[in-house]
Formats: sequence, structure tokens, C-alpha cells
Amino acid sequence: MKEEFELSLAKGVRDFPPEEKILRDQILQTIKEVFELYGYNPIELPILERYETLAAKYAAGEESDALKEIFVTRDNGNRELGLRFDLTVPFSRFIGMNPDLKMPFKKYVTGQVFRDGPLKKGRYREFTQFDPDIVGCTDVIADAEIMSITETVFTKLGFECEIEFNNRKLINGILDDLKIPEKDHFSVVVSIDKFKKVGKAGVEAELLEKNMDKKAIERLFKYLEVGKTNDETLNNLKGLVKSEIGKEGVKEVEALINYSKEYGLSHVKFIPSLARGLAYYTGPIYEAFLKDSTITSSAAGGGRYDELIGKFLGGKQQIPATGISFGIEVIVEAMKEKGLAEKKSVTRAYVIPIKTRTKCIKIVQELRKAGINTDMDLMERGISKNLDYANHYKIPFVVFAGEKELSEGKVKLRDMGSGTEEMVTVAEAVKRLKA
Amino acid sequence: MKEEFELSLAKGVRDFPPEEKILRDQILQTIKEVFELYGYNPIELPILERYETLAAKYAAGEESDALKEIFVTRDNGNRELGLRFDLTVPFSRFIGMNPDLKMPFKKYVTGQVFRDGPLKKGRYREFTQFDPDIVGCTDVIADAEIMSITETVFTKLGFECEIEFNNRKLINGILDDLKIPEKDHFSVVVSIDKFKKVGKAGVEAELLEKNMDKKAIERLFKYLEVGKTNDETLNNLKGLVKSEIGKEGVKEVEALINYSKEYGLSHVKFIPSLARGLAYYTGPIYEAFLKDSTITSSAAGGGRYDELIGKFLGGKQQIPATGISFGIEVIVEAMKEKGLAEKKSVTRAYVIPIKTRTKCIKIVQELRKAGINTDMDLMERGISKNLDYANHYKIPFVVFAGEKELSEGKVKLRDMGSGTEEMVTVAEAVKRLKA
Repeated sequence: MKEEFELSLAKGVRDFPPEEKILRDQILQTIKEVFELYGYNPIELPILERYETLAAKYAAGEESDALKEIFVTRDNGNRELGLRFDLTVPFSRFIGMNPDLKMPFKKYVTGQVFRDGPLKKGRYREFTQFDPDIVGCTDVIADAEIMSITETVFTKLGFECEIEFNNRKLINGILDDLKIPEKDHFSVVVSIDKFKKVGKAGVEAELLEKNMDKKAIERLFKYLEVGKTNDETLNNLKGLVKSEIGKEGVKEVEALINYSKEYGLSHVKFIPSLARGLAYYTGPIYEAFLKDSTITSSAAGGGRYDELIGKFLGGKQQIPATGISFGIEVIVEAMKEKGLAEKKSVTRAYVIPIKTRTKCIKIVQELRKAGINTDMDLMERGISKNLDYANHYKIPFVVFAGEKELSEGKVKLRDMGSGTEEMVTVAEAVKRLKA
Repeated sequence: MKEEFELSLAKGVRDFPPEEKILRDQILQTIKEVFELYGYNPIELPILERYETLAAKYAAGEESDALKEIFVTRDNGNRELGLRFDLTVPFSRFIGMNPDLKMPFKKYVTGQVFRDGPLKKGRYREFTQFDPDIVGCTDVIADAEIMSITETVFTKLGFECEIEFNNRKLINGILDDLKIPEKDHFSVVVSIDKFKKVGKAGVEAELLEKNMDKKAIERLFKYLEVGKTNDETLNNLKGLVKSEIGKEGVKEVEALINYSKEYGLSHVKFIPSLARGLAYYTGPIYEAFLKDSTITSSAAGGGRYDELIGKFLGGKQQIPATGISFGIEVIVEAMKEKGLAEKKSVTRAYVIPIKTRTKCIKIVQELRKAGINTDMDLMERGISKNLDYANHYKIPFVVFAGEKELSEGKVKLRDMGSGTEEMVTVAEAVKRLKA
């Protein structure tokens, strides 16, 4: 027996004590409720996948870094397995293995994903994703719905958000108009995508470095102009876009703007330079930012990927899909910033027996039956230690139960916030605690 | 690019489509709510742990099989890691790394655990556990509380359950009384534990095979007698037990019986042969069985483990703890058996636009704002395809929205169960759908 060893966490993973977990659960529960409001159903997917499955997406040409970041393991039969690095790959496999699903299939899925990548502030090796998707609908009304859900989620969490959106067809169309060779598309898109971060001058410098023609860059910036309204931005593009694919993109953007009005969305912004790094998007893309927050990272992002699942299944069919991924870590940080992370316990009432422990069991059971989260001192501690305990966990109410009070069928209820106390029956205590 | 490969799951893991996941979430949510009623708070622990941490418990002499069943991986820094095989080891590490936790610490934790073991019916390599524990309280009132929570959980899920309980001190005391050498304790306990499964004759045969003296076996069976009531079983033992540790066990059983009455527990049964395989229990042990079910496995099981965390931390201190683990797979099976797994969707209303799709967006948004889970056809399909869709997902209400009805501010609401239809305003529809 090893007598001792240093206790520590694996690198890049975290424990969540109650004061963190209560908040995380509240966020996940809110997102879940909103998605169910919109007709999305939960599914669960395994963490362990065959390595071959995880490698497939990237064998098909996507971010090759992810392959290096897969945690690999083997089972007793020496089969090579990996921990999922996102929820999209397992979901694509799920869709492929369930050809009889009734379409459109609207689902949400949540759980931990794993990436053995470099660590920096806010980057972990095990973290939570929350992904809703709708499969089987090509119309951008589905994308408008996802944007509407996103706004509802943040409103319910207490934030104003702005959803920036664009369309990959439009970007491709612009690149075609500018006669940029197909092989350079990805590289140019990466630079355009930095507009918000490095500004016009920054993008220009980068594109020049990539040997893009100065005239072409100037023309490019004309396409990327953002007007005072979405319609203004759109009208500018309508006058510029020549290629077929670009015109299709313009049409989709127009439809999305119109749908977003019907959905009652208040803060959606059309940004022609928004690209979202990942290569697999095929149509609308969107990113949500929290307005009253110092956090500049997006809190949710996604888009349409009509080809990914099909490619994953061997390329014989196209299975349209669109969805978004909520960045739980960003939302948690933003909630903390707003002071919404103060709960150290879900307990509402703490019963302190004063030499009456056994009798108090019936009282706590009554409060629990009434639906009130109730704890009691099981340790026969003194009053001051118990108050210390209730204060530590920020429990809002304390119930003192002395022999004399109990004999009169009463308890003393203290509001820990205001300090006020009153002698009440248990039934009255229930009423106060439910208020 | 690999053109094609066979899609399949890793061995021993599962996907959960909505009809399974809705049920699983409902079970987890019920357990969660009950634990919060009793003052337990959520925590979250990582799936990845240092291999050394996972191995520690067993280095201290517990089930050595588990070590062979750990899925092992390495990070880019070549650190050896493993996937947790239960929630107790990560929790022990958590307690060790957080010496400032205010005691008693009452928590629940849930998530996937992984065991690379042999597969059989109902055994998986990735499965869900739900573990509440209370740390820092030596009194068996904590064990009574755990039993009370367990009964409440199963009542809320619609089951009658019976909680069998015993005490490890009592078992050790009986073995001392029978002068069974310490080294044989574990082996004898394993046989006694089979009483329910193989009966008295079966246990006797096994103990004879293990070279236990026939007289001692007869004396043993006197100790293990179960009376008509818990008090009768207890009184029999009071007259027999001689050893100090055995008497302590009797005292704890008596206290637990009394507390369970105060908690209002209706179906608790003292079974002196109950042992629960794992070596680490030190006091009360308990197992819950569902009464109106063909499933004979326990649906929850646990007990007191006052030494485990301390050993894990190097053995310098004792940290008392007791808890239970809910077998989500067993509960799921039992719910299905009761026909409680019929939900294929959480959606309550499905809106079918009849050439009115864009106008219908406002209507669904209104229903959603009122808190009604609402889906709508995004695909402009015909009525019969849409009814087929609603039937497939067993959505209870359908809302037809034709041009004429909408112009009068009305929709047609159909109850899919009864088939009745009525023309109503959206406000009236909200009322009906909320009922």
C-alpha cells in the first residue's frame, strides 16, 4: 500500500463545488427549458467512440488539429477508442445509424467533451457543450428559429445579446466575384473573419502579406461594408454581387432578415465579414455576444452544415442540418460578473434543534413534504455553531426548535437577511417559507 | 479521405434517442429534486483523473478487479490518466483537496462512469450513477436520513420500495462471537450475503465447502434469524451477541430503527445477513428493492464508509461518510415495465400552417411565451404528412392555421387523443393547452 501521494487533479480538468455547480445547473436548465419550448427533444450520446469514427470528419478535410487532441484509449479487446472532442461527430454517427428518424429531427444534447490541447485562460481539457440542432430542413426559417431560441435563452438568463449573422454562400460568392482561386478561399476567409478583432487596416495588412492584389482588397472592402440597418447592408451587396452562389447567399440573407422580424428578434446584425473559422458551414452562420458584459468572446455560435453529416456517411446523400453550440464557460463567467453566482446552497430553511433533535425530524419532514428545501442540524451542535453553518451556506431562513416552543406547537422562524424573528406554527412557517 | 467505413458504437456504450432520454432525465430530475428537499447540494467532478488517484483506493485493499477495468489514456505530456470507474474515488479526492469545507457536507453528484469489464445483459462500459453522500456526521441519524430520501425518491417515481438494512459492526461482532479468524471474515461474509439468493441450504453448503465448522454454521443461522418485525429480529440478536463490536452494532441498529420511525418510513426491513460485497463499509448498510416489479436487482444501495476517505488521504485522519448510489439502469427498466416510458417528445402543441407559414411564426411565439412547448411545421408539408408527424411523436395537440381562420383571429385546436376539434382564439388555445 502506497502510504501517501499528492492529491491533485488531472491537468486541465476541474471540480465544481456547490457554489459553481448550482449556477451551471441553472444555466443548463434554462437552456433546456427554452429548447423544449421550441419543440426540441433531448438525446444522450456516449463519451467513448471508436477512434475511426472520431477521425472520419477530419479525414474528410476539417480542422486537422483536433485529431492530435483526441484522448486515445483501448478496451480489453484492444479496440482503439477515443473521447469525443465535440458533440457534432457523435451526432452525425447517430443520424447515420438511425435512418428511420422522422424528419425534421429537432434535438438538443449536452455533456462533457475532451481536448488534449494547450491550456490557457478559459481553455480546459474537459468542458461542457450544449448543442441544439435541427436536421432535415433546408429552409433558412430553421436558422431563424435557432437565432430566436438563442435570443430567448439569453433573455431568460438576464442578458441582452446581439446576434451577428452572415452566410457562407455570400462569402463564397464574393470570393468568386473577386476571382480568388478556390485553393486560397480558406486562407482569405480566415483573414476576413478577423475584421472585428483587428479592424480594416489589420485585415488589409494580412491580405497583402498573403499576396492578395491591392485593388481586389479595396473591392473586397466595398462588399464588407456594414450599413446603419441590416437592409442597408443588404442593399449595398445586392448592387455588387455577381456570381450565382453569391446571389443565392443574398437571397438567403434577405429571407433570414424577414423571418427574424416575424420571430420578433430585436438585436440581430448582418455582418458580411463574419465567417466562423470552421470549414464545414454551408449557409447561414451566427454568433451571439452578450451586451452588458466585459467578455468579448461569443457566448454561442453555429450555423448551417448541410454537407457534414452526408460526408461523414460516405458522401452518397446530403442531410441538411443547422445548429448552435452554447459556450457554457463564457456564460458562467458572464453570470458571475453580473453577481448572479451567489448561491452556496439550494437549501431554504435550516432547522436548529435545541436539545430536541429527534422531535425535529417530524418538523423537517413536514417542511419537505410541503416542497421546501430543508436541512437540519444532525450533529447536536450549539446555537452559535449552527448559525455559523447557516451563514456560511447563505441559507435564507433558520428555524429554532426549543423544548418549550415545541410543547406549544410552535417554532421560532428567523429571516437571516433582515434578522427578524417570529414565533409561528409549522403550518405558518410553511406559508412564510413558500412566499 | 477514407470513402466509407461501417458506422458503429464502441462496444458497451449506448445512444439514447428522445424516447429513452426524456425518461432518464425525468428520473434524474426527480432524484435531484428530492435530494435538494433534504438539503443536499450538487457538485460536479471530472471524468478524467490521474491514474494514480484511481489506483489509490485499491492499493488500500479494495476490489482489485476494478483496476483492470480502468480505461487508461495519456495526455500530450505523457501523464497517465484514467476514466473514473465510480463517483466515490473522485469524491474522496475532492474532499481531500478541500479541507476547508464546512461540515457536515451534504452533496449529490451524477455523471457517467466507465468500466472496461465483461458485458452482459444490463451491464455497460459507460453508464450513469447518481450518488448522494453526507460527510462529517458519525451519528446513524445521517443513515436514517439517507434511507428516508431513498423512500421519498421511489414514492415520487411511482414505486413502493422496501429498504433492507443491516450493520457491518453487527456482522463483524457475530463473526467474532463464532471465533472465525479475521483472515476468513471476507470470505464468510460473501457467503452470508447470498442468503436471499441461494437460501439457508445454499449458504450452508458454501460455508461447509469453505471448511467452516457445522456447529458454528448452526450457531450462525441463529444470529441471522429474521422475525416478524424489526424489533423481533433485533431482540433475538440482543440475546445472542457477546462481542463489544457486535453490541455496538446492535445499538446502532436499534437507533436506526427508532429514527426510521420518526422519519415516517413505512417499509424498512432489518436483515442480519445483508452484507453488500464491497469491503469498505463500516456501519449501517442498506439496499432498496422495488416492490411492484419483476426486477430483482436492487434499485439503490449504499452504506457508511467512515474509513475510506481517510485511508485515501494517507490514513492520518478518519472522515466519516455515508451515502447511497442509485442504479439508473434498473430504475429505467422498472419504469418501462410500468409503461411509464411512453413519451417520444416533450412537445405539447404542433402548429400546422395551411399556406400561412410566415404568419404562424407569431402564433407559435405567443404559445411559447405562455410557456407551452410548441413546434410548428417548417417544411410547408401537406396536412396528412403533418398529422403523421404529430402522431409519430405522440404530440397531444395540433393547431391548424388556415388563411380564413387566421383572418378571423382564430385557429382550430385538435385534441389528438379524443379527436375533438374546436375553433378558438390563440388566447383560448393557451388556456386549453395549459389545462
